[in-house]
Amino acid sequence: MRQDAPAEPIAWSDRGVRILDQTLLPNEERYLDIDSIDQMVEAIRSLRVRGAPLIGIAAAMGLAAAADAQAQRALLNQEWLESALADLESSRPTAVNLRWALDRMRQVVADRSNGGRSAHDVVTALRAEAQRVWDIEAGMCRAIGEYGATLLEPGFTVLTHCNTGRLATGGLGTALAAIYVAFEEEEKGIDVVVTETRPLRQGARLTAWELVQAGIPVRVIADSAAASLMAAAEIDIVMTGADRIARNGDVANKIGTYALAVLARAHGIPFFVAAPRSTIDPTIESGDAIPIEYRGGEELDAAPGAAVVNPAFDVTPADLVSGIVTDAGIVTPPLEEGILEVLAAPSR
Amino acid sequence: MRQDAPAEPIAWSDRGVRILDQTLLPNEERYLDIDSIDQMVEAIRSLRVRGAPLIGIAAAMGLAAAADAQAQRALLNQEWLESALADLESSRPTAVNLRWALDRMRQVVADRSNGGRSAHDVVTALRAEAQRVWDIEAGMCRAIGEYGATLLEPGFTVLTHCNTGRLATGGLGTALAAIYVAFEEEEKGIDVVVTETRPLRQGARLTAWELVQAGIPVRVIADSAAASLMAAAEIDIVMTGADRIARNGDVANKIGTYALAVLARAHGIPFFVAAPRSTIDPTIESGDAIPIEYRGGEELDAAPGAAVVNPAFDVTPADLVSGIVTDAGIVTPPLEEGILEVLAAPSR
Repeated sequence: MRQDAPAEPIAWSDRGVRILDQTLLPNEERYLDIDSIDQMVEAIRSLRVRGAPLIGIAAAMGLAAAADAQAQRALLNQEWLESALADLESSRPTAVNLRWALDRMRQVVADRSNGGRSAHDVVTALRAEAQRVWDIEAGMCRAIGEYGATLLEPGFTVLTHCNTGRLATGGLGTALAAIYVAFEEEEKGIDVVVTETRPLRQGARLTAWELVQAGIPVRVIADSAAASLMAAAEIDIVMTGADRIARNGDVANKIGTYALAVLARAHGIPFFVAAPRSTIDPTIESGDAIPIEYRGGEELDAAPGAAVVNPAFDVTPADLVSGIVTDAGIVTPPLEEGILEVLAAPSR
Repeated sequence: MRQDAPAEPIAWSDRGVRILDQTLLPNEERYLDIDSIDQMVEAIRSLRVRGAPLIGIAAAMGLAAAADAQAQRALLNQEWLESALADLESSRPTAVNLRWALDRMRQVVADRSNGGRSAHDVVTALRAEAQRVWDIEAGMCRAIGEYGATLLEPGFTVLTHCNTGRLATGGLGTALAAIYVAFEEEEKGIDVVVTETRPLRQGARLTAWELVQAGIPVRVIADSAAASLMAAAEIDIVMTGADRIARNGDVANKIGTYALAVLARAHGIPFFVAAPRSTIDPTIESGDAIPIEYRGGEELDAAPGAAVVNPAFDVTPADLVSGIVTDAGIVTPPLEEGILEVLAAPSR
């Protein structure tokens, strides 16, 4: 592990897009060069690249890289672009950042059909837009971190879930960004408890790995141990990310988030969600309408013959959410009102 | 897997005590013959043999078998017996059945010091007492099953945690005994959801395996998915086992039980605990005084450098418990009063 230069989850490379294969962490740092839509869809579906913001960035960059490869074979056309957009958009259903990023890319594609640009121009425009998606998400991370850090008082122990850091965002993170920024303020003495996050163990594998690299004190617990630590007054605040936030403030996030919200409420602990505005889906009125991805039963490795129910996400109702830390400020209840305000606010 | 003859977790063998190594399930059915205290302590500590009632039975049978081996080498004496009792008693701290079983064995040892019995007589008496411990636990399981089944209404989906069946008890089980008995009543159409139960996965490995063998419908979920199923009104009752119950009704059980109790309360779902009276510790006033075992961090396989906090048990306060299903009837609130009543009741 490199203490000095944290591994980058995504980068442009000579051969297209280079991603860090997160399924192999923390045991192995292996990078994959991707220059086709099929490869990127596979990488997103298999969670080699993951995290709501990073999925959007990866899809946008993957489209640009695959379009480049396609143009070099003189095969870039409108039909291919539309099919590529559709394939990428259907790779995972819950996170809305993916749709947000691809909607931006679709605009670039649409521009082309109106103009008479060369394939080279289209590739250049797609690549510039993908870079813009990345820059916007990274900028939103920094802003989230600065707003979120104000919630972390000196000596606080933060409970977080899944991975919401550099590996999930292509920037500083969402919930982890708040922790990174607070940790920079040395006198604060923040420490972190992270759930393992079954079934894919993003907390124990990825968040623990990131925080160890950053020198931030971290303790890993089983998902089911969070309640005990809350009862023992060891947790001061819960902060998670989000995959999609409905207009009313209902939050879809990694399975287990809803349980943490109920438990936090039962123990009088504030429960905050941190997410860029690209995670808010104002077209969806409430969490009921957010599509929840069910993943394969093999992820739970149960005894042969047993059925497995494996939802990857759950929905936390707005009334359990103390606030949403966005890149345009912290939204507090009533959430719906605040959400509409931040959506209307200019970017920093 | 044998559908007809379910694997027995424990048995007497020519070479002492034969246990099914539960750490290898469901992939492999391997049996170990044990005839020394060290082997039995290792088997209990490593959870090759596990479950509060079964640990007590295994310790008692292990003492008898090891005493036999010791007698054959003409090395059986009072000092060895006392040291063996102490070693077994310290093998795991939380379950009280272990102490209950060994207290019975200690009585047999004490009888010897007063009489002038031969080593052969002592071994015979120890073996008879160990068999009695087993018979009592098995009888209590059947009674728990019959009382518990009355709580399971037709069509109910029961959420359970960890493993509380044949593999945990040497009988029908505790919470699973209620499910087995209810399932025999064919018209009921009971089905079961079981949590994976991290870190050691007793739900996904052992409960799922037992129920598949018995032909009972079972679905495995991640521990953190229980809340979602409750919110979707898919769970009618939660029923777990217990490792130790304090006089006031506070329940120590597998880590995650407390979270399920809080979540059940938040969703208006009854939360029952099933346990033989040997699990009740009237010498302990409340859960605060129950020793909680912390196990090694390697069970959570976190990223190198991260700390791990791995409590094996938690304590559910009595006020979250809808009732305790014992072998002498169902105790309902106020629990302390009912607990004293069942402790005073004769055995069935």
